[in-house]
Amino acid sequence: MTSKYNADFLQRREANFAPLSPVSFVQRAGRHYSGHPAIEYGDMVRSWGEVYDRCARFATALQSLGVEQDSTVAALVPNVPVAVELAYAVPMSGGVLNMINTRLDAAGIAFILDHGEAEVFVIDSGLVTVAEEALELASVKPTLIFADDPAAPGFRPEEAVDYEAFLSGAEPLAEKDMLPADEWDALALNYTSGTTGNPKGVVYSHRGGYLNAIGDAAAWSLKQNPRYLWTLPLFHCNGWCFPWTVAAYAGTNVCLRTPAADAIVDTILDKRVDHMCGAPIIVNMATTEAEKRGLTFDPPIQFMTAGAPPPAAVLQRAKEVGLDITHVYGLTEVYGPCTVCAWKSDWDDLPDDEQAAIRARQGINYIVLEELSVRDPETMEPVAQDGETMGEAMFRGNVVMKGYLKNRKATEDAFAGGHFHSGDLAVAHDDGYIELRDRSKDIIITGGENVSSIEVEGALYKHPAVSEAAVVAAPHEKWGETPVAFVELKEGSLAGEAELIAFTREHLAHFKCPTHVVFEELPRTSTGKIQKFVIRERAKALAQG
Amino acid sequence: MTSKYNADFLQRREANFAPLSPVSFVQRAGRHYSGHPAIEYGDMVRSWGEVYDRCARFATALQSLGVEQDSTVAALVPNVPVAVELAYAVPMSGGVLNMINTRLDAAGIAFILDHGEAEVFVIDSGLVTVAEEALELASVKPTLIFADDPAAPGFRPEEAVDYEAFLSGAEPLAEKDMLPADEWDALALNYTSGTTGNPKGVVYSHRGGYLNAIGDAAAWSLKQNPRYLWTLPLFHCNGWCFPWTVAAYAGTNVCLRTPAADAIVDTILDKRVDHMCGAPIIVNMATTEAEKRGLTFDPPIQFMTAGAPPPAAVLQRAKEVGLDITHVYGLTEVYGPCTVCAWKSDWDDLPDDEQAAIRARQGINYIVLEELSVRDPETMEPVAQDGETMGEAMFRGNVVMKGYLKNRKATEDAFAGGHFHSGDLAVAHDDGYIELRDRSKDIIITGGENVSSIEVEGALYKHPAVSEAAVVAAPHEKWGETPVAFVELKEGSLAGEAELIAFTREHLAHFKCPTHVVFEELPRTSTGKIQKFVIRERAKALAQG
Repeated sequence: MTSKYNADFLQRREANFAPLSPVSFVQRAGRHYSGHPAIEYGDMVRSWGEVYDRCARFATALQSLGVEQDSTVAALVPNVPVAVELAYAVPMSGGVLNMINTRLDAAGIAFILDHGEAEVFVIDSGLVTVAEEALELASVKPTLIFADDPAAPGFRPEEAVDYEAFLSGAEPLAEKDMLPADEWDALALNYTSGTTGNPKGVVYSHRGGYLNAIGDAAAWSLKQNPRYLWTLPLFHCNGWCFPWTVAAYAGTNVCLRTPAADAIVDTILDKRVDHMCGAPIIVNMATTEAEKRGLTFDPPIQFMTAGAPPPAAVLQRAKEVGLDITHVYGLTEVYGPCTVCAWKSDWDDLPDDEQAAIRARQGINYIVLEELSVRDPETMEPVAQDGETMGEAMFRGNVVMKGYLKNRKATEDAFAGGHFHSGDLAVAHDDGYIELRDRSKDIIITGGENVSSIEVEGALYKHPAVSEAAVVAAPHEKWGETPVAFVELKEGSLAGEAELIAFTREHLAHFKCPTHVVFEELPRTSTGKIQKFVIRERAKALAQG
Repeated sequence: MTSKYNADFLQRREANFAPLSPVSFVQRAGRHYSGHPAIEYGDMVRSWGEVYDRCARFATALQSLGVEQDSTVAALVPNVPVAVELAYAVPMSGGVLNMINTRLDAAGIAFILDHGEAEVFVIDSGLVTVAEEALELASVKPTLIFADDPAAPGFRPEEAVDYEAFLSGAEPLAEKDMLPADEWDALALNYTSGTTGNPKGVVYSHRGGYLNAIGDAAAWSLKQNPRYLWTLPLFHCNGWCFPWTVAAYAGTNVCLRTPAADAIVDTILDKRVDHMCGAPIIVNMATTEAEKRGLTFDPPIQFMTAGAPPPAAVLQRAKEVGLDITHVYGLTEVYGPCTVCAWKSDWDDLPDDEQAAIRARQGINYIVLEELSVRDPETMEPVAQDGETMGEAMFRGNVVMKGYLKNRKATEDAFAGGHFHSGDLAVAHDDGYIELRDRSKDIIITGGENVSSIEVEGALYKHPAVSEAAVVAAPHEKWGETPVAFVELKEGSLAGEAELIAFTREHLAHFKCPTHVVFEELPRTSTGKIQKFVIRERAKALAQG
C-alpha cells in the first residue's frame, strides 16, 4: 500500500534505521564508559575501553582466519573473561558464537563441532584434554585458539594460536563494520541437551539477542551499572543473554571459574556483587554458605533463578540471608528465560506459604515476547485460565529462535500452528500467569543441566542384559533432581545396579548417569506404553523413603 | 548470501517474528494486569482490563468510519484519560495518531488538520471553541468525535459523535488484528513548532515508538508498576513515548488537566505519584510549591526534564524537596528525548557546583539510539572531544523519525550525510557526553513550548511600520525564556511596543508573542547578516535589569 506515510523518502535509511544487534550495546559502553570496569576476575580488572578495544581486535583477527557472516566459532570456555569477550567479539566479526557445555564428554563435544561445522575452536587451558579428545573424534578441523587461564593451567596444543597474542597482533575492526547486514542474521548457536540421542542446534538472531537482553533488564527493573556475578554458565543460552544486558546497562561482569559455595560468597563480598543468576542449586548453595557464616547480604542481592523454583522453605531462607529471588522460565529455544513471575503488590499481604506458592509460578511473557500461552497442542486453542486445565506452554514472538540448524523437520514440528511448542505441560491462572505441572518430554534437571531421559535410556539399552528401561527424575537435595532408572532384565540375564551405572558412565557425561537403578516390572498402559507418571511417583517415594 | 544459518525454514515466521509495536505492551498489560489501575483522574479509576477493552472497542469504532492503515486521526485533547486511550486505540486501528498542541490558535490547528489530511478529529469539550474556529478555516472535513470532560464543559457540535457512546457501541477489535502489517508503518504524526512559518509533520514508526518507550525506561532504571503523573503534555512527541512505557511496565497513568503548581503537588500526594516528566518550568513550580508548604517528597519523586536544564540553584532546591532529576534531551524528530545525562558514581564525590555543571549536560545516546555525535555539518567529521570545539548535535538510529510528511526536501536536508541534523550546536566532552551550547535555529523555549524566532519575525514583518525584525530568547524567571523582539522601523513610520505586541497577538498564539520590543539599529556582519548572538546578549542584559 502506498500512501503519504509511506513515500519513498520516508523509507528506512542509514539515519533512521540500524539492524538491532547486541553489538550496539558494547559500542555504547566502549565509547561512553571507557574508564568503568567491564570485567573483573580475581585481581584483574578490565575497563570497557580496554574490553571494547580487545574485542574489536579479536574480531579482526577472526576475520583474518576467514571468519565471515555465518562462520561458526565454537568455544569450550568456562566463566572466565574470555567467555565474556567472545560474546562481544564473535558477533562483531560476523561469526556465529557456539559456546559448548563444558561438562560434556568428548563424544558430545565432537558431535557439536561437526554438526555446527566449526571453523574456529577456542579452548580454555583447563579443558584442553577433553577438547583434544573431541578433536580426535570430530571430522572438522577448526583453527584452534588457546585461552590460557593461570588458575587452570594446561598445555597449548602445538597447532593452536594463543588468544592474547592473536588479538594483540590485530588492528581493531572499524565501528561501522561491526553490525550485521540484517538483524535476522545468526548471532549464536546453542545446543539443547536433546530429547533424542543427538542434541539440536538452536540458532539465535541478532534481533532476538538484542531484545531479550532488554527483556532481562525489564524483568529485573535493572539499575544502571550493575555488578553482575557469573554463576550461571555462559554456555547456557549465552548466559541467558546477560553479557549483552550487562553491556547495555554499563555494568561489570564479575567472573568466577567454578561456582563453589565458598567462592560464590567470597566473590559477592569482595566484589560488591549486586546481581546474579543461577539454577535453584546455586540459590541453595549461596544460602547455606551465608547461613554457615552467619551473614546477611545488605543491600540484598538480586538473584534470578529459572526452571523448577526452589521449595518454599528454601525461598524463605534465601530471603533471610538477603537473596531477593526473581523467578523466570524459558528454554534454549527462547534465548533462555523470557517469562517472569512478575510480582504484584497486591500479593505482599498474603501469608508466606501463599506467597511462596505464587512465586513458584513461571508467570507471564517478558515485554519483548509477544505471547506466552497454554494451549491444547491438538486444537491449538488456549486452555481455560482456571489453574487446573493442563495444556502445553507455548511461546510466540521475537525472542523465539530462528529454528534448529540443519533440521527442517524438528523446526517445523516445533513451530506447528504458529507457536513454539515448549514440550512443558502447564496450567494458566485467572490472570494468565502460567505454572508448569510436568515436563512432557521427561527432561530431568540436575544441577541446572537438562538431561534427556530418552538419552539415558538409550545408553542403558546398549547393555546386553537390559530388556526395558525407563528413566525419570527423582528429587535430590543437592542437585534438585537426578536421573533414576527402572529396568527390566532380559530373561536369563544378570546385571547389578553398580554395573549398569558404570556402563552408562562409559557412554554419557557423568552428570547424565542414573544415581539409582531399580529392577522391577514396568507399569504399562493397556496399549503397552510405559506409564512414566507412575514410575515418577515410585522414584519420589524411594528418594524420600 | 545463503548458508546453513539462512535456510528457508530458518526465516521469519509467525512463531518467531512479530512487528515491533507499542500495541504489544498494551495487550500484555490488558491480559495480565486486568485488575491493576491503568488510568486515574480525579475520582475516576480505570483498570488495565477496562482500558484495554475500551481501546479495542474504540479501534473497531474508528475502523467503522473507514479508518485503516495510514488514516490520520487528529486530536485536540489535554492530559485527560481520553488522550492516554488515544495513544493505545488509534495505533490498534491502523490509524496514525496526530495529537495537536492545545495551545495553538485556530489558524495553527487548521494548518495541521489540512496538512495531515485528518479523517477523524477528536475534540475535548473544553477546546470546542478553538476547534470549531479551526474547522471553519480548514479545507478538510473530518468526522468529529466529542470527548466530554465534566471538568471543562462545552457544547457538543451537532455533527459530532460522543466518544463514550461511540466506543461502547462497538465490538472489541480482535487481538490478532491490532498489530501493524510492518513495524515501519506510521504510528503517529507530530508537528514541530516550525522554524519557518509552517510547522513540519514528523512521522513516527511503530518500531521507533516501541524502542523509545523501552529506551525511556532504561534511562530511568524504571521499576515495575510506576505511578506516572501526566504533567508533560501528551501532544509533545506523544508524551515522549511515555504512554507506551507506562503500559510496558504495567504502571498507572495519573492524569491532570492543567499543570498548576497546587494541583501538581496535591496530585502527587493524593495519588502517591512516583514518576513524572516536564519542562524545567514544572520542576520550578513543583519545587516552589513544596517549599511553600514546607514539605519534602519521601520517597523522592523521579523527575525527568529535558532541554535547557534548570540552573544549579534550582536543581539544588529540587533535590532538597525530594525531586530526583534526570536530565534528558531530544527533539520531536527523535521521539522526544533519546539522550540522557547518565549519572556515573565517580561523580558523587564532586562539589555540588561541579555536579550541577555535569548534570547540565545532555549526555549520551539512549541504548536504543545507535549514535549521538557532535559533527562539523560541512565535513560530517566528529569534532574533537575536548569540551570546546563546537559542532552540530546529530542522531542516528532506530529512534529517528521516518521523515517529514509530504516534504521530501526537508527530509533529505535533515538526513544529509546519514545522520539527523538537530540544528543544535554542542560540544563533546572526553567521555563523549555532549553539552548544548546554542540553538542554531534560534528556537525559543517558553514554558516548555518551542517557538520559532523566524515565525515571530514573520508576524512582525506583516506590520506596515516594521522594516527589520530579529527575535531572540531572553531569560525569564517563570517561563524559562520568552521571545524579545528587536526592531528597526521604516523611515517616517511610527509604532510603539504595545502596538506591535498587540499586532502579533492577532497573528500568533499568545505564548509565541514577544514580551518586549526594543527599537534600535540591528548589529550586522560585514555581509549584512544580523548578528543574533549580539542581540541575544543585549536581551539577556536587558532582562537582568
